[in-house]
Amino acid sequence: MNGEAILVLNAGSSSIKFELFDVVGDAAETRLDGQMEGIGAAPRLIARDAQRKVLADRRWAGPDVADHAAALGVIMGGLERATEGRRIIAVGHRVVHGGPDLAAPVIVDHAVMARLRDLQSLAPLHQPHNVAGIEAAMRSLPGVPQIACFDTAFHRSHAWEADTFALPPEFYARGIRRYGFHGLSYEYIATLLAREEPALAAGRLVVAHLGNGSSLCAIRGGRSIDSTMGFTALDGVPMGTRSGQIDPGVVLHLMMAEGMDAASVQTLLYGNAGLKGMSGISQDVRDLEASDDPRAALALSHFAWRVRREIGALAAALGGIDALVFTAGIGENARALRGRICEGLGFLGIAIDPARNTANEPEISPPGAPTRVLVRATDEEAMIARHALVLLQCSRKT
Amino acid sequence: MNGEAILVLNAGSSSIKFELFDVVGDAAETRLDGQMEGIGAAPRLIARDAQRKVLADRRWAGPDVADHAAALGVIMGGLERATEGRRIIAVGHRVVHGGPDLAAPVIVDHAVMARLRDLQSLAPLHQPHNVAGIEAAMRSLPGVPQIACFDTAFHRSHAWEADTFALPPEFYARGIRRYGFHGLSYEYIATLLAREEPALAAGRLVVAHLGNGSSLCAIRGGRSIDSTMGFTALDGVPMGTRSGQIDPGVVLHLMMAEGMDAASVQTLLYGNAGLKGMSGISQDVRDLEASDDPRAALALSHFAWRVRREIGALAAALGGIDALVFTAGIGENARALRGRICEGLGFLGIAIDPARNTANEPEISPPGAPTRVLVRATDEEAMIARHALVLLQCSRKT
Repeated sequence: MNGEAILVLNAGSSSIKFELFDVVGDAAETRLDGQMEGIGAAPRLIARDAQRKVLADRRWAGPDVADHAAALGVIMGGLERATEGRRIIAVGHRVVHGGPDLAAPVIVDHAVMARLRDLQSLAPLHQPHNVAGIEAAMRSLPGVPQIACFDTAFHRSHAWEADTFALPPEFYARGIRRYGFHGLSYEYIATLLAREEPALAAGRLVVAHLGNGSSLCAIRGGRSIDSTMGFTALDGVPMGTRSGQIDPGVVLHLMMAEGMDAASVQTLLYGNAGLKGMSGISQDVRDLEASDDPRAALALSHFAWRVRREIGALAAALGGIDALVFTAGIGENARALRGRICEGLGFLGIAIDPARNTANEPEISPPGAPTRVLVRATDEEAMIARHALVLLQCSRKT
Repeated sequence: MNGEAILVLNAGSSSIKFELFDVVGDAAETRLDGQMEGIGAAPRLIARDAQRKVLADRRWAGPDVADHAAALGVIMGGLERATEGRRIIAVGHRVVHGGPDLAAPVIVDHAVMARLRDLQSLAPLHQPHNVAGIEAAMRSLPGVPQIACFDTAFHRSHAWEADTFALPPEFYARGIRRYGFHGLSYEYIATLLAREEPALAAGRLVVAHLGNGSSLCAIRGGRSIDSTMGFTALDGVPMGTRSGQIDPGVVLHLMMAEGMDAASVQTLLYGNAGLKGMSGISQDVRDLEASDDPRAALALSHFAWRVRREIGALAAALGGIDALVFTAGIGENARALRGRICEGLGFLGIAIDPARNTANEPEISPPGAPTRVLVRATDEEAMIARHALVLLQCSRKT
């Protein structure tokens, strides 16, 4: 057999997630996936096949897998058997930030690489690791096209009104814009619905990507109109450990009246706020739902309130709403929380059918509801693999 | 004649606005108003009668009216003829911040004064001037009750979900909460509508107080449910010179990546952003509407977009909307901008009747519209006078 395969990598601060896809005609079909976590500390590699069967689960001492290059070396070694008789024709990378200009996936050359490095200051917590992942893959698979897919790209269709802050134009010119994130997830959902229900997908959707990071996106005719995340992944609704949007006056007060420095405020807002900070218990919705501590209930209640408010705001941005789609870890699973989010949204035609919701059906609104409420699993890696395949086929034709 | 009068003072950084009300039975009727502006710099006193006829317009050299005490002395001198045969029975003060506890107007005693001083760190740009105004009035009118009315008080009915940020509970405990502002304006509008149209006022209102400072408030059954301003008057929609809500990641980026200090960011977000910052032309909507500079149009377009989004968010907070009320300088006058804000809000039952809007009628939605759109003049001073009168009558009875 002489098949082709695409490798997708998602490199974080101390982890690399990977997924291997077989190319079957025009499609990319998942074959196995996994992750190396605890890089440099307590490295652990887990791999599963397409049926979620664990193929490997190995641990190392920290120094033995010290950086992203070493981690990718281990991953590639582990993939040798799986890729036997197959040729990896492209590596697709999830890259958090494409800046104002990179509005579509690109094959990484020297110019693109320089641009990605320039953008590191816009996403200092994520972009350097994404770049390190591309560099490691270039060394590990020389000559194989590296394709960067951006979490910001899907939102580059925003009108100026949604792309700007109320600051002098020079701030916009130097890149202080509302980029939006989770774009690969939103694009996957928009593409999926366009196939499943083209009439609905041509309308006005609010997609709630609620996971460890959370945001919502307004999509009209398949294009992103607005999103709750802005310049950074700190904006919008509260998250597992992030505050989401907060009065900028609070940031100034913490520094000017309480003597905190900017780095401490950053640590607070990114790492010690959100569900974990409010509850003092956990960032995990399942833990909070299982807890009888009143702070756990309050944290979930505030989360639901904030998401509900943003659904209203995005409906206004869209001029109405035809469907609300829940996705990502919380969106796909947290039935009770979905119900609470939708409370009081009857004025938007939104209602939840309790039996359908409890059964986690793909449609959880009552039959015939004016606004449909859907649940869909997102798959950013599949979106990346598809982008890589299309881009490669286009570059072969030209 | 031996009538009673109430003096209302609104002390800002370099100005004191004043209004004198005659007590007529249970009501306070405006008699004259005016302001001393340019205190310490280029002092100018203007006073008008109830028919807006100018009674006085005088200027001084800066040192001659050096502080709030001197300014109030001049004002009281000017009021002597107007108050001849009348007794000032109370002075009502607009105070920006009542903190978590002061949820209603109070007669200022030593304990309240200490509390107001404690709250200065929560509103460093406004509260010290409000306190200076009360101190000056105490010296100028010894023995006359000084009554503090708070811009935050009307919002103390918010549920915890709307009152908190997604931060650890200790931040809430030490006062980092979503206080909301413009409360005296919202209370005036709610009271006015309760008299004019009790059935409507018992429902769900979004009031858009759009002026030099702007915010929106969700009111249900006469009580504030949510507001776009939070811990400070910087939050929410863009304003004349303020940014409104901005991704907190932008604040951190300006400091950590661009080297700005907190004070410079504060100056930017409070003074050089908003309509003035975006347009580079003016903070005044009339100037922007008259300009053919494309930046003026963009600034108005972003403003309308942001206000529209917040109407949707507050409708979600309310679980629907029965009426949208425009008030304050922009809300009462900017016809074209009102029309743009309401574009695309048909899904909320909101529409604008162009003829009614152009004529600036009190109701600008078409006859029979499912959601009524109203225009009402706000009057914070009248609200303060009424509070002072009621509080005084209550304290006399006890």
